[in-house]
Formats: sequence, C-alpha cells, structure tokens
Amino acid sequence: MRILVVNVNTTESMTEGIARVARQAASAGTEIIGLTPEFGAESCEGNVESHLAALGVMDAVMKYPGEFDAVIQAGYGEHGREGLQEMLDVPVIDITEAGAALAMFLGRRFSVVTTLDRTVPLIEDRLLLAGLDSHCVSVRASGMAVLELEEDPQAAIEAITDQAAEAVDRDRAEVIVLGCGGMAELGETITRRASVPVVDGVAAAVRLAESLIGLGLSTSKVRTYAPAREKKLSGWPLGQSVSAESSVAGSASTAAGPAAGSG
Amino acid sequence: MRILVVNVNTTESMTEGIARVARQAASAGTEIIGLTPEFGAESCEGNVESHLAALGVMDAVMKYPGEFDAVIQAGYGEHGREGLQEMLDVPVIDITEAGAALAMFLGRRFSVVTTLDRTVPLIEDRLLLAGLDSHCVSVRASGMAVLELEEDPQAAIEAITDQAAEAVDRDRAEVIVLGCGGMAELGETITRRASVPVVDGVAAAVRLAESLIGLGLSTSKVRTYAPAREKKLSGWPLGQSVSAESSVAGSASTAAGPAAGSG
Amino acid sequence: MRILVVNVNTTESMTEGIARVARQAASAGTEIIGLTPEFGAESCEGNVESHLAALGVMDAVMKYPGEFDAVIQAGYGEHGREGLQEMLDVPVIDITEAGAALAMFLGRRFSVVTTLDRTVPLIEDRLLLAGLDSHCVSVRASGMAVLELEEDPQAAIEAITDQAAEAVDRDRAEVIVLGCGGMAELGETITRRASVPVVDGVAAAVRLAESLIGLGLSTSKVRTYAPAREKKLSGWPLGQSVSAESSVAGSASTAAGPAAGSG
Amino acid sequence: MRILVVNVNTTESMTEGIARVARQAASAGTEIIGLTPEFGAESCEGNVESHLAALGVMDAVMKYPGEFDAVIQAGYGEHGREGLQEMLDVPVIDITEAGAALAMFLGRRFSVVTTLDRTVPLIEDRLLLAGLDSHCVSVRASGMAVLELEEDPQAAIEAITDQAAEAVDRDRAEVIVLGCGGMAELGETITRRASVPVVDGVAAAVRLAESLIGLGLSTSKVRTYAPAREKKLSGWPLGQSVSAESSVAGSASTAAGPAAGSG
Amino acid sequence: MRILVVNVNTTESMTEGIARVARQAASAGTEIIGLTPEFGAESCEGNVESHLAALGVMDAVMKYPGEFDAVIQAGYGEHGREGLQEMLDVPVIDITEAGAALAMFLGRRFSVVTTLDRTVPLIEDRLLLAGLDSHCVSVRASGMAVLELEEDPQAAIEAITDQAAEAVDRDRAEVIVLGCGGMAELGETITRRASVPVVDGVAAAVRLAESLIGLGLSTSKVRTYAPAREKKLSGWPLGQSVSAESSVAGSASTAAGPAAGSG
Amino acid sequence: MRILVVNVNTTESMTEGIARVARQAASAGTEIIGLTPEFGAESCEGNVESHLAALGVMDAVMKYPGEFDAVIQAGYGEHGREGLQEMLDVPVIDITEAGAALAMFLGRRFSVVTTLDRTVPLIEDRLLLAGLDSHCVSVRASGMAVLELEEDPQAAIEAITDQAAEAVDRDRAEVIVLGCGGMAELGETITRRASVPVVDGVAAAVRLAESLIGLGLSTSKVRTYAPAREKKLSGWPLGQSVSAESSVAGSASTAAGPAAGSG
Repeated sequence: MRILVVNVNTTESMTEGIARVARQAASAGTEIIGLTPEFGAESCEGNVESHLAALGVMDAVMKYPGEFDAVIQAGYGEHGREGLQEMLDVPVIDITEAGAALAMFLGRRFSVVTTLDRTVPLIEDRLLLAGLDSHCVSVRASGMAVLELEEDPQAAIEAITDQAAEAVDRDRAEVIVLGCGGMAELGETITRRASVPVVDGVAAAVRLAESLIGLGLSTSKVRTYAPAREKKLSGWPLGQSVSAESSVAGSASTAAGPAAGSG
Repeated sequence: MRILVVNVNTTESMTEGIARVARQAASAGTEIIGLTPEFGAESCEGNVESHLAALGVMDAVMKYPGEFDAVIQAGYGEHGREGLQEMLDVPVIDITEAGAALAMFLGRRFSVVTTLDRTVPLIEDRLLLAGLDSHCVSVRASGMAVLELEEDPQAAIEAITDQAAEAVDRDRAEVIVLGCGGMAELGETITRRASVPVVDGVAAAVRLAESLIGLGLSTSKVRTYAPAREKKLSGWPLGQSVSAESSVAGSASTAAGPAAGSG
Repeated sequence: MRILVVNVNTTESMTEGIARVARQAASAGTEIIGLTPEFGAESCEGNVESHLAALGVMDAVMKYPGEFDAVIQAGYGEHGREGLQEMLDVPVIDITEAGAALAMFLGRRFSVVTTLDRTVPLIEDRLLLAGLDSHCVSVRASGMAVLELEEDPQAAIEAITDQAAEAVDRDRAEVIVLGCGGMAELGETITRRASVPVVDGVAAAVRLAESLIGLGLSTSKVRTYAPAREKKLSGWPLGQSVSAESSVAGSASTAAGPAAGSG
Repeated sequence: MRILVVNVNTTESMTEGIARVARQAASAGTEIIGLTPEFGAESCEGNVESHLAALGVMDAVMKYPGEFDAVIQAGYGEHGREGLQEMLDVPVIDITEAGAALAMFLGRRFSVVTTLDRTVPLIEDRLLLAGLDSHCVSVRASGMAVLELEEDPQAAIEAITDQAAEAVDRDRAEVIVLGCGGMAELGETITRRASVPVVDGVAAAVRLAESLIGLGLSTSKVRTYAPAREKKLSGWPLGQSVSAESSVAGSASTAAGPAAGSG
Repeated sequence: MRILVVNVNTTESMTEGIARVARQAASAGTEIIGLTPEFGAESCEGNVESHLAALGVMDAVMKYPGEFDAVIQAGYGEHGREGLQEMLDVPVIDITEAGAALAMFLGRRFSVVTTLDRTVPLIEDRLLLAGLDSHCVSVRASGMAVLELEEDPQAAIEAITDQAAEAVDRDRAEVIVLGCGGMAELGETITRRASVPVVDGVAAAVRLAESLIGLGLSTSKVRTYAPAREKKLSGWPLGQSVSAESSVAGSASTAAGPAAGSG
Repeated sequence: MRILVVNVNTTESMTEGIARVARQAASAGTEIIGLTPEFGAESCEGNVESHLAALGVMDAVMKYPGEFDAVIQAGYGEHGREGLQEMLDVPVIDITEAGAALAMFLGRRFSVVTTLDRTVPLIEDRLLLAGLDSHCVSVRASGMAVLELEEDPQAAIEAITDQAAEAVDRDRAEVIVLGCGGMAELGETITRRASVPVVDGVAAAVRLAESLIGLGLSTSKVRTYAPAREKKLSGWPLGQSVSAESSVAGSASTAAGPAAGSG
C-alpha cells in the first residue's frame, strides 16, 4: 500500500525527516511518499500560515500523479483535514488526531508538547473539534520554533523533555504527545528520557492509516464529507491543482478507489 | 468609518445583495464596501470551497487599496476568521458569530436555519469553536442551495419559514438566526412571517463592528492573533496579496491603524 | 433613542458615574437616563443584596414615567435580568453579558476582574446561565470593595491592573472585562496600562442596546420571557411599581412599543 | 427539631398542603412549620413572580419569631436559595435540588414533570446552577397551571401521569421528579400509576434537611455564602424583615445557632 | 430498619470502625450491620482490588441471611454499585456519591481528600459517572495509604487537614468530603480543625439510606437496573453467593421486599 | 506477535467467532489466541454479569501460560479494562473504545448499534469514561439478545441494519459501530447493506493493538495504571489466577516484557 505523507510547510528537509519517521513506523510493504506543498510558509506557526497550508496540502495531493491508499496531513494543529476528507475517497489522517487517539489507549490523561505558545490555541481547537479534548490535560509550549527543531535538536530535546516532565508532575499527564511534525525525529531520544510513553503523531498516523486500509474502511460520504457539489471555480492560478477540484476530485477518487481496493 | 464586507464566494450579485443589507443595517456615517474574492467557488457549500474562501477573503482584504476600520467575513460557517484577525489590527467580525451573539440577548435558546444539510456541520463547528454553541438548540437545513436563494427567493422564504417554525415548536428555539449570507435580503419577509425574532448575521455584524470601532476596541495581539512571525513564503502566485503577508500585514496594520483611530 | 441605565445599588454618585460612561460610549442621538433604585443596598456584594437589587431595578424601571427604547442593568453578576426581559417589550441588556459578549470578538479567551472574592461566584453563575462561560478562563477578585472604587480610585486601578496582568500571564486571558459597574470610570486608565483590550460592561451594553434597537430587534416572547400571566399580587407595599406588574407591565409594553418603533 | 417549610406564593391553602406532605415525610420528633410570604404572587409561573418570591421567602423567614433548625424553600425552579444560605446559619434546602439529588440515587436518568411550559426554563437553570443537570434527561410541562393542581387534581394527575409515561418511553427517564411544590399532595396517586419511582421535592427536602441537621452539618461560610458585609440598606418598607438584614441576620444566625446545636 | 454497611476490603477492624461511625450517624431505631467481604484485598487502592471488591461486596450481601432495608457500599471510588442496584430491590448507596451529594447542599464547590494519588482517578471516574462531578473542584491525595489511617491516625489527621486547607485556599473548595471509608473515624477531629464543613461519606450514606427507606423509595427497575435476565452462570466457586445470582436475586428481592415495606 | 482476544462470557462458540474475525482483521504474522473465561455468564447483558466478566477476563489472562504482546477485551460496554491495564505491561485494548476511536477517523459523528436496551447504559458509561462520547450521537438497541446473534443471524442482521439506517437518518450518524463482540461475524453482511462505514470493535482492536505493539508503546505506569501495591489478598478460591495478583502480576509483566520486545 502507498501512503502520502504531506508536510504542511515548504521546507523540504522537514518533509524528508517526517518521511523517514513514517517509514520507520510503517509495516513491511507500506510505501511512504513524502510530499511538500508548492506554496506556503517555510514553517507553520499561526493562522494565516495554517490556512495557506490547508490549500497547499490539498494542492499537493491533487497534483500527485500516482495512485495512493491514504493521506496523512503531517502538521500538528493545522487547518484543512476536513477538505481532504471531502476531496478524497481514501482514508485521511491528521497527525494531531492520530497522536491523541493512540495516547488515549496508553493512559488516562495526556499532554501535548508543542513548539511556540502561539500554536497552542490551534492545537486546542483541533482537539476540541475532533472530540479528542476531554482527556487532554494541557497543551504546553516548549518555546522552540519549528525550524529550531532542526537547527538545534539538542536544545529542542531539552526544552521538550522539561515540558513533558512538568506535564506529568503538574498537569497529571500520563502520556506525552509530540505536538509538531518536526519533532518526529527527536522522538526516540525524548522517549528514552521520559517517565511516560511518548507518542509521535506521524508514527501514529501511519499505523492508523494502515489499520483503516487493512480493514477496508474509508471516510463516510453521507453528509459532512460528501463529494463537493458541481461548482464553477474561478480565478485560481494553480491550474493542475485544487482549483480544478470539482472534476479532478472525481478522478482522484477514481484513481484512489482501485488503489484503496488493492490495499 | 469604513467597513469592508467580504463575500466568501465569487458571485458578484451576492456581494451586492449583502452590501445592500449591510448598508440598511449601518448607522449614518458608516461606509460599506462590498468585496468579492478574486478566486474561489461561486458558492460555498463544503469544506474545500470554504478553505478556498478563507484565502480568497484574506486576499481580497489585503488587495483593498484604501483604509478601513473593520472587516466582516460574510459567509455563514466558513473557515478563515482567525487568519483575518491575525493579519489585521482592525476588528474582524464573522457573521456566524455575530448572528449567534446578538440572538443570545433576545431569547434563551436560538436555532440557525441554513441552506443545505451538508453545511450544518460547518456551522456547528464554528459555533463550538467560538464558544457560542451552548444556547444553540439546532442548526436546521432548508434544503435550498446558496444560489437558489437568489434564483427562487419565494421558495427559499417558504422553506426557511417552515424550518423556523419547526425550530420554535420542536427544538424550543426562541430566536432564529439566518444561516447564510445570501439570506440577508430575504430577512425582512421572513421576519414578518416568524413568531420570534429573526437575526441576520450580516446586519448583526455591521452593528457589532460599529460598536467595537466606536469603543476603540480591536483584536488582542498577545497570543492567538499576534502578528505573524517573519517567514519566507513561497510559491504563491497571487503577488499583491496573502503571499506577501509578512510584510504587507504590517503595512495593512499601519494603514488600518489611523483609520481605526478616525472611527 | 432613549436608554435607561439602571444602577443596582442606591448610591447616587455611582449612578452618575455609570451614566457618564454610558454617555461617552453612546452614539450621537442616544439619550442616557441613569436610574437609581429606591430601595436596596448601598452596594451589591452578595446574594441578599443582589436579590434586593433584582426587584429594585424592576421597580425603578416600572416607575420611570417616560418612554424608553432599551434598559441596561448596570450591575456585574446580579440577579434579575430575566425578570426585566419578561416585563418589558424593549431590549434588556445585562452588563455582565454585554462585557463578555464583546470580549469574545476580541480574543480567544477572556478574564473578568471584579471587586471582592465573594462576588466571583455570582459572576460565574451569570456567565454559565448566559452560555458565555466557555471562553472565560477566570473571574479574579481585586480585593477592592465596590464603594472603595470611588473612595480610592488609585488603589483600585493598581489592584485591578495587577489582576489583569496575572490573568494574561497565568490564565492565558487575551482580553480583560471589568467586572463591576463601578469600575466604568476607571476603564480608561486601566486600558492604558493593560497589554490587552479592556472591555467595560456598561459601555459594551450601551452599544449592544443601540445595535438591537437599530436593527428593530427585541426580546422573544414565545416562552421564557413571555408576558406574565394574569395574577393576583398582594402585600407588596411599593404601590406604583413591581407589585402592580400584571397591569402596569402591559402599559409599559405599550409605552415602550412605539418608542422602540421610533428607534 | 423544627424545620420551616416556606411556600413561594401567597396561597395559604397551598402552604397547608405542602406542610401536610412535609409532615408525612418527616421523622418522628420533627416539627414542620409552614410559612406563607406576606407579599408576592398567588402562584409563581415566571421570572418576576419568582424574583418576588425570592424576597418574600427571605422576608417570611426573617420574621419568624422562633428558633428553627433548617429552612426548606418549597418552590420548584424559583430564585432565591442562595440568599437564604447567605442569611442563615442553619441548613437551607431548595426542593428543586432535593428532588433531583434523591432521584439520582434511584436510577440513571431522571425527568422532571412540571406545570406550564414557561416554567421549564427556570427549572433547567436551577438544575444547571446546582450541578444536578447532567442526569436530567428532560423537564416536561403537564400544561396544568399551579392553581389548577388544587382546583382540578384529577385532571392534574392525568396530565402528569401522561408526561411521566412519555418521559420514561421517549426520554429514557428511569425516575420522575414532581416539579412543583403544589404537586406534593398528588404524589401518592401518581406514584401508584407510574412504572418508575416518583420523587416529590418537598418530601425529599424534609429528609435531606433532617439528615444535615442530624449530622451537624450546615452551610459553608467561607466564600459564596459568607455572612453579608455591613451595609446601609434603605428604602425597604418591610421593617421587620429583609431590609434589616445586616443586623437581623446576625441575630437570626445567633438564634438559629443554638437551635441548630440542639438538633 | 436494618442497613447493611459493606466494607470493600477484608480488614475486619476497618469494618468495625465504619460500622461504629455508621451507628453514630444513624437515627434511633436504625440497626447497622457491618459486613466484610470473604475474599479480596486487605485494602483497596487500585483497579484490580476494586474489581475484586465489586464482587466481594455483592457476594457478602447475597450471603447475608437476614432481611435488610438498604445496602451501603463503604468504599470511596470503588467499582460495583451498579451491580448491587441491579441485584437488589432495596436502596443501594455508594459512599462516594453520598458524600458528594450532601456536600453540594453545603457549599458551592467541594473537594475530596483521599488516600493515595493512585486512587484519585477512580474517584474522579465515579463522580463523573454519577453526574456529581461538576461542583467538585479537586480530588486531592493525602499520601496516606488506607491501612495507615488506622496505624497512624495522628499523621493521617495532619495530612488530611493540610490537603483540606489547600483545597479551600487554592481550589476554592467550600466543603471537604472525606474520600475513604477508613477516614470515617477521623472525621470528628478533622471537622474541628477545618474552616469549612467536612462530610464523611459513610455518615452521609446512612442518612440518605434512611431517607430513601423512609420515603418508600427504591431503585428504578425499568432499564439500567432491571433484574438480570435468566442466565447460565458457570465456574464460579463461591456457591452460596453471586454465582447463584439469577435465582437468589429473586429471593433476595423477595426477602428484601417486605423488609423494605416495614421501613 | 501474539494477541490474546478474551471473550467476556463463557460461550465457547462465541469465542471462536470472535477469534475468527480477529484473525481476518490481523496482519500477516499476528497470532490470535482466543480465550474464554472459566467462570461467569453465558452472555453479558447487565451489570452483575459484567462485573463477573471483569474478573473472569483478568483470571483468564493470568492463567494463560505463554507469552503475549497485547490483550483485547472483546466485550462491548463491559467493566474491567482498567484492571487489565494495571495488571499488565503489554497494551490492553477494549473493543468498545477501539470501535469508537476508529469511527472518529471515518466521519464526524458515529452511532453504536448494540443488542438489548439494557446494555445501552453500560456502553454510554464506557464511552464517557474513555472520553470518546462527544462524537457519539446515539447508542441504539437492536432488541436482539447476545445469544440470539448466533441463533438467528438473519434476524439479527435485519434488526441491526434497521437501527443503523435510523441512526443515519434521525441521529445524523455518519459511521456505525457494531456494539457487541458477538456481532463481529455479521459485520461483512451489515457493511454491504449500510450506506455508511461499519466498524467492528474486534477488528478495530486487533489493528490498534498491532499498531501499539509495532510502535513499541504500552500503558503508562505512572499513576492510574501503576502496578498494584503489595497487598494481602485472601479468600479467593481461584488459585492460579487473579488472587495471586501481587506476585503473578510481576511475572506476567516480566513474561510479557520480552514478548512485547519481540513485537
């Protein structure tokens, strides 16, 4: 089976890191394709960047020429997962939700440790909408910006480990979720240092995507994520992508259908 | 004072209708500027269209050459308000929230009557995120598509009035909120037929925007809506707009600042 | 248009201060009438005083000889707004709800700073009943009694500013609401010192009342606030007031009706 | 021990009926004193009447010349219990809360059957504030006005029994709570007809008051219900009652103290 | 009337202490029978022990040869109350719920002080399921194990008193609930030291059981706690007990019925 | 890897059916071991049976002589998962939670279709405790008893399909979860008939268990599920099982440890 793992920012090295972690997490026989949006911000740490990412991810998926069996949106707390679900017939997994969902099987309460204070509200909102907030005792900021995770991994590990410890001691968290796609590569070290299980959203998403594919399950199409109605879209300058959605979506669905069937 | 009222779809006639209602609702001395996104769907009735609208609205606002004192996003249940708030220094009002907020002063429970069944989840999610859901007893679909509101207003009035009556009788609603920017022009007739107050989000938003401007209040900039960090944005083909956000946002803020001060 | 702003306690100087702030907040052409209850406590800082205020406010409104277009109950966290809504045809705004409702358009989470610790529960309960509690992260007491706000405004400003800063730093508030009608006159100074927007409930209520009047909206009369049933009231010694409610209410409604219509 | 059971309206025959039921429910050795407010409405079915009742009940309790060990406010869904708790040192029980609290020990979900549709919101609000709403699946109106319960008990029994059956069948209630003090005398018959336990709030309140007295427990005085601060009250024409609260409350507390101690 | 008070662990001295407190709390004429499970843990401080206790308590009740009018499960935060309610016709009271329910009549918010940190989640879960969590501001651990309460009562009193003070100061609790059946005998001393009312669940449960018996109320049998369906139970080695449930339950019901009728 | 799938009742044929479905759902290389409790009810449809099952499942797991990498509790809405998590070092998955967790990735709201009306509350409670209730719009009973699923699969399929259709039409469910371990074998047929995705909890649990094992994740041991404290357990007649928990748990943990490591 083939899973597209789409970065939410335009930093290629981050896409590669995410794909590496995804491959480590994947079962034998799963092919991981890392995609980078063609437009957007080098890192997502706010609402405008996140809205750009929503379209950037959809655009990247629509342009992908091959078949695929699932899509993972590899940004923590970003907008857009609902659009992908509407657009595609194959399963879509947001790493925000994947991390939280698996964490809930590992302990009674979890905490998310993310990058900057300003991204905390975005994550809280995603968990609330997903109905995965009631066991989340805190979303804590490490103070490290997204790009600093790559630039100074050692400092990042320290900062994240500190917040994880605070989450366990003060917020009574029993599980830690890494709240940024860019943290995936630090996960192993953080896990060794932590007193509780540490869940990486990318890895969790890969396994959940495989699970859904394996069980022949995909997004319900009866209401919220029903295929878009026939519409005139105009003015969008990115030809081979989202703007052609009303027709391409069908073919993506068609394309994805058999792929999904081959899973 | 000048208020930008931005349609979420590319249908000009709908922008005009919305602006007409906004002008009727506005106080003397308020100038209403209707804006139409340069790209996007002719009507928004789903997630992909709504994500396009989020960027389309931001783009239209950034391209607006003059000063302004507030922005109204005139789509019911659409994504994107958080981005506008981050991007601008002047007040931003989403009509989804405006309609709900005023409704809560008029009765103990309200119901939203919208267009199609598939837009109900989008509205429910916006109200949940805004913390305005606890007094909302239902979001009901009239079965009329957005464009049908213009094409067959008589049928739309019937369908909306029917659902409003059901909301009062079955869901115990005491106030009705019109759940689509395109319903604004039907509001007067629906109000005459209804047994309870009917709130139009566009009109409500205009008055709320005037209120905030008049009181010298605007979006808090300490965390969620703090100005975007300096970022490299790339690949966005719409030059004079969102893609130039990190610098333009500043000048928009500067531009808006004095305008806000003149309110 | 004419708006009655009713103090909840019997301290005339406080009524005057509240009316001054209301006038500053009002649009041109809005007449503000400050009313003081004929009975009750010199300041409201508890439940018995608040229940007296509920009747005192209704009594003051019923005795007002002229026409009016809206009523503002200018006590933060007091009982009684529901009674006014039942009694009157014109819009009724409680400053507790007005401050919270506007705050929600300015930031993701707000905090109320009030007077004494013992008034915190009253405010929390009002916000809960109004469905405006989910974005309220804290109600903080400054430790200043209501009358001390007038007696020692400098100390009050310090204490309130300190709590506002704590609310932003510890509770993650992005907006501050002044939690006492008597704080209105301090608002300007507190605003200058605060790092986030500061909302005064009285000013907010004036603008919201104007908004509802301007839009021709008033309280729904279908269930919760339907006119009182014909009843025998007895024993009430305050002749020209609440005790005559079943009949006077009608005439108040009649009186208010045209006034509302002229808004 | 002596328990004051205070009617919320001025209809003496209803006070007598409530006292009769209270005596049936009471243990041997408990003296029940029925009190009727000196002012207020003949029946409470709305907000103004309920606010009058809040003061009427406090007034009646303050005028009671003897000692007592607990006070029961015998109106379902009325305002004012918080004031009594602040004013008194002895336990205070509201029948709304008493009925709900006992119901929760008898089944997983309960439904309240009350009089008119317009009183439903008052009851819902009281349960919400009391934190007793989460197991309440519905508050249903029988359509019988309060005074009709006395005038046509047979019709009342039919209407209440019908709603109780609907609550069990449709709302999945496992217990019924009678939602009006005036229903107490019908309780026995309704119980015989119902398929589930039927809780009368008056009877429940008597037993709960006895329980608290027996265990030497009374209202916490640290914050919400701390004794009122010294205040100047003015203009209140009801001399020997609430208006003298700041001093009388002390003596009531003093008076009640030993009485409570003798329980 | 006769009430069975069933310890959840196998420590006889603790059963005796609990029964002593129950007798002190009981009205004249109430007979308290303390029961100890025949199997299980010497103290319950975790999930496996609590699941054993659930069966141990049911087993002890089924083996009790006489008639009885109510059963109290005297463990704080333990599993199993639902099973007892299904099995019996007489009222069943869990002390977790009894303590919380009475606390809610004494103050606006309560805190539970329990033994070890690891039992906090069990208590939180029970309160959540019972719908008694919304006024609970915290469940605090004293750090004393269950058996240490007996071994070193002085240290236990200190530790519990400290946590109670923290709960009042930091969590804004207005009432303290003792969160362990084994704390019952320390209650008097803790009460003397506390600034707020202290509720012991065992004492509360006795009074609540008496209340239900006195009012002729017992568990609803329509759905959740309907008698078990006829089933083949196998493999259970404890002959005269739970394993014979399907038939014995009937006779227990029968046996209990008249007893309940004699209450 | 080896996964124990433990039936909650003593009906061997049901264990076999569950194991068959588990094997179909499992990845290549996963060994499924079906276990049947040695004691308990032939089917679980109530609280006493469920409490027996809690111990029966723990007992069966403790007696299992080999190593294993995860345990699945294959009863929908049963007690006991917390005990297993406390007792074991390897991941534990309850099918109630597994079905709900996967359903949330497939649509915005899901509905559970279970057997009898009396089991609905048990399922609702489990979802509430697991924090997986907010997207669950209903738990519907098909009216088929557990054993009837085997005896008359055709009728069961009809009844379940009917309820699924109602859930989609009336409750706005977008995904159906099969609410009984015994429904697993009917899943394929029901899926073919349904208009929305149908999730079987057993299959979901197998994939989730594999996911956790594959990612090297297991239950957090810091608080809620920390290993039991050293305790004297007595009176339990089932020697080689739960009663020896304090020591055996260690060896089970030890035994499981390497097994987990080999996953």
